[in-house]
Amino acid sequence: MARVYNFSAGPSMLPEKVLKQAQAELMEYGTSGQSIMEMSHRSPEFMAVAADTEARIRRVLNVPDNYKVGFFQGGATQQFAMVPLNFMTTGKADYLVTGNFSNLAAKEAAKFGQVNIVANSKDKNFTYIPDVHAIEYDKDASYIHICQNNTIFGTTFVDVPQVEGIPLVADMSSCICSKPVDVTRYGCIYFGVQKNIAPAGMAVAIIREDLLGKSAKGLTPEQIPTMMNYTTILNKDSMYNTPNCWNIYMTGLVMKYLEEDIGGLANMQKINEAKAKVLYDYLDSQTFFVNSVEHKYRSMMNVTFTSPNPDMDKKFCAEAAKAGFVNLKGHRLVGGMRASIYNAMPSEGVDKLVQFMEDFRKANA
Amino acid sequence: MARVYNFSAGPSMLPEKVLKQAQAELMEYGTSGQSIMEMSHRSPEFMAVAADTEARIRRVLNVPDNYKVGFFQGGATQQFAMVPLNFMTTGKADYLVTGNFSNLAAKEAAKFGQVNIVANSKDKNFTYIPDVHAIEYDKDASYIHICQNNTIFGTTFVDVPQVEGIPLVADMSSCICSKPVDVTRYGCIYFGVQKNIAPAGMAVAIIREDLLGKSAKGLTPEQIPTMMNYTTILNKDSMYNTPNCWNIYMTGLVMKYLEEDIGGLANMQKINEAKAKVLYDYLDSQTFFVNSVEHKYRSMMNVTFTSPNPDMDKKFCAEAAKAGFVNLKGHRLVGGMRASIYNAMPSEGVDKLVQFMEDFRKANA
Repeated sequence: MARVYNFSAGPSMLPEKVLKQAQAELMEYGTSGQSIMEMSHRSPEFMAVAADTEARIRRVLNVPDNYKVGFFQGGATQQFAMVPLNFMTTGKADYLVTGNFSNLAAKEAAKFGQVNIVANSKDKNFTYIPDVHAIEYDKDASYIHICQNNTIFGTTFVDVPQVEGIPLVADMSSCICSKPVDVTRYGCIYFGVQKNIAPAGMAVAIIREDLLGKSAKGLTPEQIPTMMNYTTILNKDSMYNTPNCWNIYMTGLVMKYLEEDIGGLANMQKINEAKAKVLYDYLDSQTFFVNSVEHKYRSMMNVTFTSPNPDMDKKFCAEAAKAGFVNLKGHRLVGGMRASIYNAMPSEGVDKLVQFMEDFRKANA
Repeated sequence: MARVYNFSAGPSMLPEKVLKQAQAELMEYGTSGQSIMEMSHRSPEFMAVAADTEARIRRVLNVPDNYKVGFFQGGATQQFAMVPLNFMTTGKADYLVTGNFSNLAAKEAAKFGQVNIVANSKDKNFTYIPDVHAIEYDKDASYIHICQNNTIFGTTFVDVPQVEGIPLVADMSSCICSKPVDVTRYGCIYFGVQKNIAPAGMAVAIIREDLLGKSAKGLTPEQIPTMMNYTTILNKDSMYNTPNCWNIYMTGLVMKYLEEDIGGLANMQKINEAKAKVLYDYLDSQTFFVNSVEHKYRSMMNVTFTSPNPDMDKKFCAEAAKAGFVNLKGHRLVGGMRASIYNAMPSEGVDKLVQFMEDFRKANA
């Protein structure tokens, strides 16, 4: 069968070129006589792979020298606990709830301290992002937490909270590497890699060094579970214990692709903007399919829409899957459809989806 | 280059047949039009992969119905914290320290309650296992913890603690699936998969159901970090969040290989015993190389030995690597050499290593 256009919210498409390279060298990495999956994480060959992946992340995302880059397991969900355990030094933190994952992050943090929900867009079913300049932040907050792009609802921050002396912590799982980011605006950026970078099974955190070595109020750093202690893991270059070596390798291949084939994140942004424009322009050109997100906050990565009714949604998803457009069903919290058009979704996938949508509309309107 | 014989303690060799299958279907799993790495974990195709992997683990290890099998991230090190967080209901637990990882497990548990080191083989540099029948266990212990096979020191338990009413928890990272195991003797068996099963990045825990739903004394289950709560993850069939899909798939392939190509763990044991016998018999036949483990407790998986001096050790490892026997250097805590001869190490790898050792001995004795 030909490759399908996979609109999954994650795990999701990977660049075909990257998959082919992984396949070609699966049995033997370089001239090592071993698969990368068999290689000791402490071997010079693998240490070089890990160092190269980190260096490429630093170049692609323009990470300043005073930030550490670490590889972790447990996905963004584990980060939801690690952030408060490591950073909630005053016992308080501000959370903006703009969707499902920011809500889960806030609930997890409440296990370890006082969480102030300083903004919540639930009143309009998370179809917008609150004005970050109109929010009253707590002067004693250890940090401010946002989820930069809301995978399920298809919204994204256009500006981010900036409060003097209070670090911003952002979950960027569903938008990382979709366009350039000014890392200096954040104290910590973390992301599960399974949406816009690599296969599932790893999270990356980029952390400003002055935030390390601390712990939630009431805990010493030594009382944090070892695998949740950023400082411990980062002091060992993400090899305190055996890391997810295959994922470090795959992440490196994708970073290489972003650098050498795409030409960096400014180019990636142009491609992504063009793809999203095709889909949003189509959605705005007719009334059969509706995207209900406030235009300003529309996500470039996750495009949500509904047809006239749930039965029609179902019919659409079934016919789309048969035509090679898979995983278009929206999240159960929202219903309808969602097209996740991450970096690896080819432009023609979006073009053909729009053509399919128009054909479906004509046949069913 | 030909495939090397990789004696790494983990990550380590995988069956060549499994690697070839993974390579063959890397670009497209079945007729899905997607790589397994791109597949939504909630898709019917991947749910079937995960269910098949669990079913095969249950068959291969003969797991009774009243035990749950779960996939976790963070390796055995994360389990070191999860065990006390979930099981230390009395606030106390007994730990047997028989090497580096059991020591780390005990230290981690001490963050969450009172750890009683009821036996410690450090007095003879971990070259033996204490008599488990001569130990005075705490009647109030929530559980007894052992590391079944000590990767670094090359020792293994031959009998295990059995105390009425107190569950035994065992780290089996470096011996799981090397031979049949009576799961009913344990309350919980956990293992990182990167030594004897699959690539790095996943741990499996097999837990008797009556131990679930609880928490360390002083904590409610809701206060455990979500990703460290066995019950939460198991209630969602290991898909509370996105799991390490690639590793679940690879683990399934290896289980299939154990079932269909090897014919189960009784056969695997015969093969492993024969391999270990070749190496230990050789070590016992001469005096140049010395294995200092008490014979009764010699590991079938990790065989440690030294040459007359550290310089000679170094020379041996260097020449062995050139000859295609890699990663024979012992752990820094022990020095010397270590040959990890897990399931996937072919018999001829051990035969050829012994020949190489004998040639080296003749040239250097």
